[in-house]
Amino acid sequence: MDTGTFTSKDLLDKLFDNGILFETGVDGLYGRSGMFEEVIERFERLVTRLGAVDKPTRIHFPPGMNRATLEKSGYMKSFPQLAGCVHSFMGGERDHAKLLGMMDAGQDWTELQQPTELALTPAACYPLYPTVAARGPVPMDGLLFELSSYCFRHEPSQDPARMQLFRMREFVCIGTADHVHAFRQSWLERGKAMVESLELPCELDLANDPFFGRGGKMLANNQRDQGLKFELLIPVSSQEKPTACLSFNYHQDHFGQTWGLKFADGSLCHSACVGFGLERVALALFRHHGPDVNAWPPAVRAVLWDA
Amino acid sequence: MDTGTFTSKDLLDKLFDNGILFETGVDGLYGRSGMFEEVIERFERLVTRLGAVDKPTRIHFPPGMNRATLEKSGYMKSFPQLAGCVHSFMGGERDHAKLLGMMDAGQDWTELQQPTELALTPAACYPLYPTVAARGPVPMDGLLFELSSYCFRHEPSQDPARMQLFRMREFVCIGTADHVHAFRQSWLERGKAMVESLELPCELDLANDPFFGRGGKMLANNQRDQGLKFELLIPVSSQEKPTACLSFNYHQDHFGQTWGLKFADGSLCHSACVGFGLERVALALFRHHGPDVNAWPPAVRAVLWDA
Repeated sequence: MDTGTFTSKDLLDKLFDNGILFETGVDGLYGRSGMFEEVIERFERLVTRLGAVDKPTRIHFPPGMNRATLEKSGYMKSFPQLAGCVHSFMGGERDHAKLLGMMDAGQDWTELQQPTELALTPAACYPLYPTVAARGPVPMDGLLFELSSYCFRHEPSQDPARMQLFRMREFVCIGTADHVHAFRQSWLERGKAMVESLELPCELDLANDPFFGRGGKMLANNQRDQGLKFELLIPVSSQEKPTACLSFNYHQDHFGQTWGLKFADGSLCHSACVGFGLERVALALFRHHGPDVNAWPPAVRAVLWDA
Repeated sequence: MDTGTFTSKDLLDKLFDNGILFETGVDGLYGRSGMFEEVIERFERLVTRLGAVDKPTRIHFPPGMNRATLEKSGYMKSFPQLAGCVHSFMGGERDHAKLLGMMDAGQDWTELQQPTELALTPAACYPLYPTVAARGPVPMDGLLFELSSYCFRHEPSQDPARMQLFRMREFVCIGTADHVHAFRQSWLERGKAMVESLELPCELDLANDPFFGRGGKMLANNQRDQGLKFELLIPVSSQEKPTACLSFNYHQDHFGQTWGLKFADGSLCHSACVGFGLERVALALFRHHGPDVNAWPPAVRAVLWDA
């Protein structure tokens, strides 16, 4: 909780020591204190306030989604290592006895489970596209949604800014290329001004997603060359490698093609989103302003508490 | 959305038609409208207000928990059919190519995944007990927590009141048998008065958990004979079989024994909890007061919006 150099693990220990996060025995999986939650709630209201001028339609999806939807989205092609699927026991009493026996013997009993229809949601917007496509043609002046969801990514880490289960708030714009570009540009500016109003050091940077494997390197280079992804970076667990707390993504017509998102004239929709990593922003605030929210700078408190 | 008799599926279709819930293609897995979310948020604030007099400590856990904790809790003995575990792909590029080939061929590729350390949280309080035990002895005047969590239960259904992923708010009391009994008794009264203030028909009833298998029948009977579980029932998808929207549970010293929750003198702690099924309460409100929250009875709006 000081501004000096420290390791991720140091920061995590400080968060535990100050009762801001609680250990569960699994890296990247933590309980959150009431104060941590209040900071997240206040920040969410700030985001909603800043976005209200555009009159987004709010939808909330649960932390799990239709696995078939995730498969069709192409996620398993690009990020197979991050996905999570839900398996459940569907056997009878004899299988149950076997399961308990294996558990008692310290064996891996999970093989007695079957895959369910659910996968965990990797980003708030994945369940949105088929929901919009089912409504019919997209109006020419586009659609704007405000989403929030718990998300899962299987990347166990002792960096508190890299949780396996975390919340993302997102605005998603679906429309023409020009329209969604303008949307993203406006949030590049609004997002940076918002984080600066919280007195957090930040910088915008070109970025790429963590595509899997050797083929993924090419995808990452393409993404950078075309300027499809920007991130707003804030030092959280490292000064040298600041953390992406907001991301600004232009999907071209990828989701339009995948889900048949079209205008009435049959042309494909483009889409863009801006995502706010809620735990990351809260961690950045505790990291830079200290463990006691009552001692945070008055201007920061005013933005989060008084507005 | 009328008070007549209808089937669960009728209610679900009306919720879709009114844009209150959104289909995902999986029974028990739905998107929620902004208005649905606002009702849940307002109800959560009401619960928090009613509980504030007892000064609970708020903790939030994510929708997944340490699988080892779930195993140790005994959940797989009693409710194996409801649990969900998270599996992820952990292979290399060759395995990934195989995965994509299986997916293209419409085969079950999920067997290429491995179990992770995470299980989905079945009730908000499961991750709490080991967290409290790690703090050392429980003070003689007990502990009180306010929790909220997304929970998972694998029971696909077209009854909108039986979702696979839903939110639960909980107060959990840990202390002497007398103390936790008094806590539960006070919430039996406060909970009923709260639901009546929302002009919802309700009745308290003795209940039991859905224990698995033939042995489960005996456990259910024991639970009823000892009066360990009560539910506050509200007609949601059926008049004849009203839905448990609040539950009031006395665990005796089950979690005390399991997790070594003790007072300084070494005696075991008892525990009790009251759980609020947030989606179920919201559905009850839409079911009885109609799809347009602006047309809800003024007294109900006053409790949720003006307080």
